[in-house]
Amino acid sequence: MASSACILAISLLALVVFIALASDQSPIQDFCVANNGSTVLLNGLTCKDPKEVVADDFSFSGLHLAANTSNALGCHVTPVTPSEMPGLNTLGLSIVRIDYAPQGLNPLHTHPRASEILVVLEGSLEVGFITSFPENRHIGKVLQKGDAFVFPVGLVHYQRNPGPTNAVAIAALSSQNPGVIIVANAVFGSIPNISSNILEKSFQINKKAIGYLQTKF
Amino acid sequence: MASSACILAISLLALVVFIALASDQSPIQDFCVANNGSTVLLNGLTCKDPKEVVADDFSFSGLHLAANTSNALGCHVTPVTPSEMPGLNTLGLSIVRIDYAPQGLNPLHTHPRASEILVVLEGSLEVGFITSFPENRHIGKVLQKGDAFVFPVGLVHYQRNPGPTNAVAIAALSSQNPGVIIVANAVFGSIPNISSNILEKSFQINKKAIGYLQTKF
Amino acid sequence: MASSACILAISLLALVVFIALASDQSPIQDFCVANNGSTVLLNGLTCKDPKEVVADDFSFSGLHLAANTSNALGCHVTPVTPSEMPGLNTLGLSIVRIDYAPQGLNPLHTHPRASEILVVLEGSLEVGFITSFPENRHIGKVLQKGDAFVFPVGLVHYQRNPGPTNAVAIAALSSQNPGVIIVANAVFGSIPNISSNILEKSFQINKKAIGYLQTKF
Amino acid sequence: MASSACILAISLLALVVFIALASDQSPIQDFCVANNGSTVLLNGLTCKDPKEVVADDFSFSGLHLAANTSNALGCHVTPVTPSEMPGLNTLGLSIVRIDYAPQGLNPLHTHPRASEILVVLEGSLEVGFITSFPENRHIGKVLQKGDAFVFPVGLVHYQRNPGPTNAVAIAALSSQNPGVIIVANAVFGSIPNISSNILEKSFQINKKAIGYLQTKF
Amino acid sequence: MASSACILAISLLALVVFIALASDQSPIQDFCVANNGSTVLLNGLTCKDPKEVVADDFSFSGLHLAANTSNALGCHVTPVTPSEMPGLNTLGLSIVRIDYAPQGLNPLHTHPRASEILVVLEGSLEVGFITSFPENRHIGKVLQKGDAFVFPVGLVHYQRNPGPTNAVAIAALSSQNPGVIIVANAVFGSIPNISSNILEKSFQINKKAIGYLQTKF
Amino acid sequence: MASSACILAISLLALVVFIALASDQSPIQDFCVANNGSTVLLNGLTCKDPKEVVADDFSFSGLHLAANTSNALGCHVTPVTPSEMPGLNTLGLSIVRIDYAPQGLNPLHTHPRASEILVVLEGSLEVGFITSFPENRHIGKVLQKGDAFVFPVGLVHYQRNPGPTNAVAIAALSSQNPGVIIVANAVFGSIPNISSNILEKSFQINKKAIGYLQTKF
Repeated sequence: MASSACILAISLLALVVFIALASDQSPIQDFCVANNGSTVLLNGLTCKDPKEVVADDFSFSGLHLAANTSNALGCHVTPVTPSEMPGLNTLGLSIVRIDYAPQGLNPLHTHPRASEILVVLEGSLEVGFITSFPENRHIGKVLQKGDAFVFPVGLVHYQRNPGPTNAVAIAALSSQNPGVIIVANAVFGSIPNISSNILEKSFQINKKAIGYLQTKF
Repeated sequence: MASSACILAISLLALVVFIALASDQSPIQDFCVANNGSTVLLNGLTCKDPKEVVADDFSFSGLHLAANTSNALGCHVTPVTPSEMPGLNTLGLSIVRIDYAPQGLNPLHTHPRASEILVVLEGSLEVGFITSFPENRHIGKVLQKGDAFVFPVGLVHYQRNPGPTNAVAIAALSSQNPGVIIVANAVFGSIPNISSNILEKSFQINKKAIGYLQTKF
Repeated sequence: MASSACILAISLLALVVFIALASDQSPIQDFCVANNGSTVLLNGLTCKDPKEVVADDFSFSGLHLAANTSNALGCHVTPVTPSEMPGLNTLGLSIVRIDYAPQGLNPLHTHPRASEILVVLEGSLEVGFITSFPENRHIGKVLQKGDAFVFPVGLVHYQRNPGPTNAVAIAALSSQNPGVIIVANAVFGSIPNISSNILEKSFQINKKAIGYLQTKF
Repeated sequence: MASSACILAISLLALVVFIALASDQSPIQDFCVANNGSTVLLNGLTCKDPKEVVADDFSFSGLHLAANTSNALGCHVTPVTPSEMPGLNTLGLSIVRIDYAPQGLNPLHTHPRASEILVVLEGSLEVGFITSFPENRHIGKVLQKGDAFVFPVGLVHYQRNPGPTNAVAIAALSSQNPGVIIVANAVFGSIPNISSNILEKSFQINKKAIGYLQTKF
Repeated sequence: MASSACILAISLLALVVFIALASDQSPIQDFCVANNGSTVLLNGLTCKDPKEVVADDFSFSGLHLAANTSNALGCHVTPVTPSEMPGLNTLGLSIVRIDYAPQGLNPLHTHPRASEILVVLEGSLEVGFITSFPENRHIGKVLQKGDAFVFPVGLVHYQRNPGPTNAVAIAALSSQNPGVIIVANAVFGSIPNISSNILEKSFQINKKAIGYLQTKF
Repeated sequence: MASSACILAISLLALVVFIALASDQSPIQDFCVANNGSTVLLNGLTCKDPKEVVADDFSFSGLHLAANTSNALGCHVTPVTPSEMPGLNTLGLSIVRIDYAPQGLNPLHTHPRASEILVVLEGSLEVGFITSFPENRHIGKVLQKGDAFVFPVGLVHYQRNPGPTNAVAIAALSSQNPGVIIVANAVFGSIPNISSNILEKSFQINKKAIGYLQTKF
């Protein structure tokens, strides 16, 4: 996974989390450690026998390691969800480490099921989100090392490293399976494509421009 | 409001709903009719005295009337939320009527707080949504009169009238304040603008194209 | 199903929904399309593999068709729940079409798990509900075509077509499995019967009247 | 209150609870002791300053006292809700003591917002509820001293003292404001009355019988 | 079970409930009677086929019987959870009977998933809880027969019989699986032990005292 | 605040959060920025006018700064809750930075309203929690830089720096107002004291030992 791009890594986050399914209801037991091999699929994850639970079910290693950001976006996301830490199942939380090359971008995206608090560990980040009410207001800021920022659930947001050096952040999300929708990929890279007359009218651009954009995603 | 466009009308939906605030927690009383003039703002709406409630608090008129769709998108949304029907407060539901001119489009958008079931009353509609997992799968269909379709919460979706005649739909949403994020407006029409280097890299297009798009929204 | 009565159709709604089970918790995935054949019964429905999901899982046809209302009540309910539209599972919504003959009645009933917004598509309807606080207040109104009305969760309510022509409504409910309790059937038509001394005292009528009513349901 | 009937006492329960409003969301503080005099009405109750809270806010006395059951139903309900025990606010629970004279009846009713566990302290009770699925099944039993029974939320249920001596029960409910809908009162005793043609068709009885029943409630 | 101690009985409560698993989400059906033999473990319990449900699934007997309190604490807890009453599954409630010998103590403990209302049926009880905000405030009172008291969810609390005679209480809890953490047992009796330098510093006592305490639990 | 101890800082967390009140229900708006000066106290926080919201409402600075750990426990907690970051209100998340001197201890405590994921940024940490089922099982591990660990909601847990150098962690919590109960302080340091015969029997130690412990907290 070392050379994967930010977009790809985020997508994998979605994938591995779903295989584990997930449940953000309140826990009814002390814990419900994910039984990742189960064939019963539901709105949440089946559990291991609680008597067979071990400390490693609740832990994960490697968040101090820089990821490879040599990809088009200059960004890499390392997720910690029930796939990586089965004990998270039913607890309503997950975290990620994000690495940014200089000028690296975590592109415009939303999490349909989680708010996110981000803490800058190294470097600086230009961050922002767009509100639905007041309509289309852009709330943004440049963060320095040690700064924290919160992105409310469901809103379009981004982070960009404006600096000359690498940046690193840890972000906590309020769901074990936040989901991620990268705007450009969803709109111009879906399979099958959204028909061009819908894209033309939504973005008020012509068919040729649409075709160009679709080759990119 | 007769000549407003689909985008404008949707935006108004967001606006009026918020002024009324909202609460999608479970009701703790039979009802909590919205006290729309209250100055106390909270995660939900304050209530009128239950002894002063009347039948009109629970009703709304005019959903049989065709709206004016002579705007750029050929689409108009008429909302029924606690602003229009105060009795909806705390009940976790709202509805809209949507009118589509021939080729009219309800452009790519998400509702951060609601799933939506749509029923086609007149004409036909080409509808679809994009999933986050499996990644960027486009699930779409052409609906005829009498068909219903559901758009899961938080996913990017659209409706388009492919036909030669007007189309009309009723849609129910699973929140009294679903919110709406129109992708193109949020991305290219925010105030202030998202910086062009973020848009360029997110959409992999050049600065001139970004500038062009920003003039449109 | 063409000749079934309103009561019967409503009961079928309860039946088919339950076989599909249901879950009104928040979704933890984009969707959890109902696996209607599953033998695992829980508080909610197991899902199909998300990779095998198709657009038809999210759609349903036929809501433009008039149902046969030639039954004792002059009323027919056509449900759209996860049994008919598997994609509704976990999304917290369902809809119904209701047909009313002239003088047709959707009799006194409650939904234990959903509020309901009703929109009159054709004809007129006399509607109302009874509150628990203020105690036993009747809130009612005559609706015309294009009017909407909301019935809060758990309260006894009814709709009646007072007019000389057929009436049609679409109603949205805030649960995928709202449940329905028709007051007269629950009270006088249960199996086994509620003992007559309980009914006599509850309704302050004599044994003979109870016996008469029990033959009706 | 000594001579009030079971129906009246239950109604008072609804009344006092509502004045206190209520909130069955999860608590966000250790406690939110009801500020019963507040003029701000919402989906839940405003709180006292936590520094002014005292032990009496969390307690209530007198549940060992027999209530007067000399009324038409031979039944009396003594509620403990946030009106009587302000510390219950936000905690999602309430309790009642119920006294039954010989042959006393707690008539057919539902709680729209709570399940109920009942424990028989003295005497015996014939209890039951009617399910919505399987349709209109009557599940009932005679309980003896020391027996417990649960009535699921929203279902029609009753308790009757079949014995020659008084009976006493304690019941816990899963909401601070369960609400109560007494079937006969809601149907035949609402203000204003439900129109007779709705009642006639719902219960399949004639106008004269309806008029007779309406004089009773 | 007759001679078991209060601590042991409480622990059994935790055990049996978990085997049954549990679900405090809202019910989506009328009921979901626990299928206690199921091998599918999840955040909540699988259900029996609703057509095979019987009245005994909703009932439990024996709460009038005094338990044996001849143990070190002079206290015994008799639980009623989905293990004992399968119909409780998904309904968000459970109850217990507690017997106290003279000077008997239900020692300092918390319920991580439930608030608790206690009613004194016989004797008197000295009760209290400690708040987290205001910090470490002790709110306590002596209760007499017929008094009720509420312990908010998650807070450390106790009950002690100060009197010369036995005491008996019924308590309702706002979860089908409240869980119980007895402070002394968790801290000094865990398997394996918490390391002594953590206990020494947490309690500011020396290693020998820690060793002594660990032999007790 | 520079010289405050871990216990004190944690307590302040509880205090400041409460003044801000809190709400972990789902948001009904894009955001509900805390109106920290409001006199209306409820189960959640009132909001600022959304039109007056600024980027600083969503940010906080200084998490890169080492705190002073020269106190009895060698530990300091820096909270980020709605008091410090008003935009967190209604979003169900908070974070803390924790500094540990060599041998520093975050003593045995529970969070009644949140699970917690901790990431070690510097040094190493010995961590663990005690389960309620299986009964009193101790699940613990030594974490190194870059390791993450999750503590389930409501369970007793601790972190200790076993190393010769300082340790630093960031922890995310699944509530905006997690609350904290430090076991030793709650038990031996409450105001007023828990009576000694309750403590003696709970901990099976004599009155003199209790008196000694109470002087410590």
